[in-house]
Amino acid sequence: MTIAANDPSLKSWVEVPANSDFPIQNLPFGIVKTSEGARVASRIGDFAIDLNALFVLGYLDNLPFTKSDFDANLLNPMMEKGKKGTRALRNRLSKLFSDGNSDLSKNTHHVSQILIPMDEVEMLMPLHIGDYTDFYSSEQHAYNVGCMFRDPNNALLPNWKHIPVGYHGRASSIVVSGTPVHRPKGQQKPNDDEPPVFGPCKLFDFELEMGFITYEGKPLGDSISTEEAEDYIFGMCLFNDWSARDIQKWEYVPLGPFLAKNFASHVSPWIVTLDALEPFRVPGPVQDPKVFPYLEYSGDKHLDIKLQVSITPENSEEKVVGNSNYKFMYWNMNQQLAHHTINGCNIKAGDLMASGTISGPAEGQYGSMLEISWKGTKPVAMPDGSERKFILDHDTVTMRGYSEKEGVRVGFGEVKAKLLPAK
Amino acid sequence: MTIAANDPSLKSWVEVPANSDFPIQNLPFGIVKTSEGARVASRIGDFAIDLNALFVLGYLDNLPFTKSDFDANLLNPMMEKGKKGTRALRNRLSKLFSDGNSDLSKNTHHVSQILIPMDEVEMLMPLHIGDYTDFYSSEQHAYNVGCMFRDPNNALLPNWKHIPVGYHGRASSIVVSGTPVHRPKGQQKPNDDEPPVFGPCKLFDFELEMGFITYEGKPLGDSISTEEAEDYIFGMCLFNDWSARDIQKWEYVPLGPFLAKNFASHVSPWIVTLDALEPFRVPGPVQDPKVFPYLEYSGDKHLDIKLQVSITPENSEEKVVGNSNYKFMYWNMNQQLAHHTINGCNIKAGDLMASGTISGPAEGQYGSMLEISWKGTKPVAMPDGSERKFILDHDTVTMRGYSEKEGVRVGFGEVKAKLLPAK
Repeated sequence: MTIAANDPSLKSWVEVPANSDFPIQNLPFGIVKTSEGARVASRIGDFAIDLNALFVLGYLDNLPFTKSDFDANLLNPMMEKGKKGTRALRNRLSKLFSDGNSDLSKNTHHVSQILIPMDEVEMLMPLHIGDYTDFYSSEQHAYNVGCMFRDPNNALLPNWKHIPVGYHGRASSIVVSGTPVHRPKGQQKPNDDEPPVFGPCKLFDFELEMGFITYEGKPLGDSISTEEAEDYIFGMCLFNDWSARDIQKWEYVPLGPFLAKNFASHVSPWIVTLDALEPFRVPGPVQDPKVFPYLEYSGDKHLDIKLQVSITPENSEEKVVGNSNYKFMYWNMNQQLAHHTINGCNIKAGDLMASGTISGPAEGQYGSMLEISWKGTKPVAMPDGSERKFILDHDTVTMRGYSEKEGVRVGFGEVKAKLLPAK
Repeated sequence: MTIAANDPSLKSWVEVPANSDFPIQNLPFGIVKTSEGARVASRIGDFAIDLNALFVLGYLDNLPFTKSDFDANLLNPMMEKGKKGTRALRNRLSKLFSDGNSDLSKNTHHVSQILIPMDEVEMLMPLHIGDYTDFYSSEQHAYNVGCMFRDPNNALLPNWKHIPVGYHGRASSIVVSGTPVHRPKGQQKPNDDEPPVFGPCKLFDFELEMGFITYEGKPLGDSISTEEAEDYIFGMCLFNDWSARDIQKWEYVPLGPFLAKNFASHVSPWIVTLDALEPFRVPGPVQDPKVFPYLEYSGDKHLDIKLQVSITPENSEEKVVGNSNYKFMYWNMNQQLAHHTINGCNIKAGDLMASGTISGPAEGQYGSMLEISWKGTKPVAMPDGSERKFILDHDTVTMRGYSEKEGVRVGFGEVKAKLLPAK
């Protein structure tokens, strides 16, 4: 698919720093807050683009939006206009900010109302998440976990290559980058032969994931095919799915993870549209055994998105502990969405579906401390001389991601949060 | 706790048929639709009480509500006023409809605007469910499943008597009584030695459950104790958690049920307040082993609610297949809510938490066909001469529930749905 707004030769009359995640080819969506309140925004370089101001000043005429879509503290009303609406909006922004276009740039008074320096805004939770689903779609992650907890010769469970395994998570506790998280308390069973104990989680971990956000789907009872899936995907974000490994181990049989996960997860504040990621498509792995027809797809449905996760101990320097890539996924978004709806399950505008931990085939490419420290047997050295098997109180975990091709870098910024002690 | 509105000697000037679930001691909340649109209602006998009309006519003055709380197609705005608000509202209704009170009854013109015969209204989905959690809190059900799929000598998993086991389910596909459901399609693995197959579910089942609805909780990171729990529970409903047993068996290891459950669940349309259920408290079972302090509770926290489930084959008579009781729960709502939030997980006004299948200790008291037909080995005879191991296309499943004491019956009406063939 050719999208004019993705043209790598496009430049903007707004200055964009080298290596910015937010050139004119990105134009993501988010919610910014200033002293004047919250509103829908896009971003270019180091500026937020105030879409409410842009609408009020008449630059978004003849698009299927009303003022309340932008004078809002959530992206949901805008997303309810569907892909046709949000695509036309991004195309309009691309045109307005292109260096060959002076519709907006000639009016410096308007420009000063519309462009807000990023250091003057607070980024809010960008959307109301109706339902949140977490998949488990990285083969290397599933294999690593299987090796550690089961048998290296039968590391993948029998259903894993037939089903994009997933489960429902908690939507209410998903928060935006920057929100501190408290170490959760809960039951654990550290010794097989002794009764369970209660207290703060001791094996606190991150999971390096990406999430995709859906548009309104079909009525309950209908399915979305792999061919149709992209019409129902608005965009993507970074996702840190915190995990309390010791709580998880004791609680998860037979109904899956619950308190080990639902105390908090973090999203990055800017939702990068699937349109902006279009140039970064790559083929996925050969799937063997052959999948059922409802999971077959054609074309390149994987995305080359470089991912990084780091730990910053209190009063110390940041240490990168993993470099992964979204292209390592075994199951792609089209397959995940087709699977999720094959039984007639309905999706809504603002649902979040996460990838599961994304680990690459090599050491150094793992997406959780469980794998990086191999269950605590390989501690990681920190710049301050300390070691990490899992995350300690006052550590800050940061995840970043971007795609790059033909000199154009489209990125997600970061999702970052500090772990505070148990309450 | 003494609540005047529960006084068993109360009578109403509205005629209430014998054995009605909706005497003046009930006064549940729901959403009704007529040719004039949707609005919040209560119910007495065979009449809906139009709360929007009641508000407009001035009968709900000096309560913490605005017109938009009742001129609404969801109970959420009303619930956001918290227990203090909804309790005061129910008390007001109790007073207005008591036979000693003529404030409303003397004005026959107002009465005709406020009372709508139930056969003139359509019951809508009563609330927007933010997050849905399903527990697994009936010991007999967990034991029965353990016997069938594992070992009768170790039927309960090691964590079951320490943890009110639960998992997150799908909120978007929860619909109101009366909505037909299609048999879901999905992967199954009927033979251990052969590859999985794809097609309509063959082992379609109901689960007889009850759900409770929460008020807005505490901020993320805080916990709700067993003592505080009732301040955060608005009311209860009947809940049919449809289950595709064959899909579930193949998909659920290791992350729990997903497509086997999320195609649809049904709620009864009237939410009966926890206040109205107060007289029906009973002691729960002795919990051995002793639970962790955060799960300890004092007082009677279980409820005696008689439950019934029936199957009506197409063009045939209804056959009751199970009689259970909510008092059979091992873990009560207070414990479930304390557990759910012990890690800091936050709850919102309108979350639904379901009990899990409620089975009693005797045959005839089981809450799923899996148990009733003991995995299909004990088919149930239907009035039309056919047999049921699981639910067949065009069958209607109906669940009913009520409490009764001192001549007062407070009930839930029914949750009913017909199974249509796979699309």
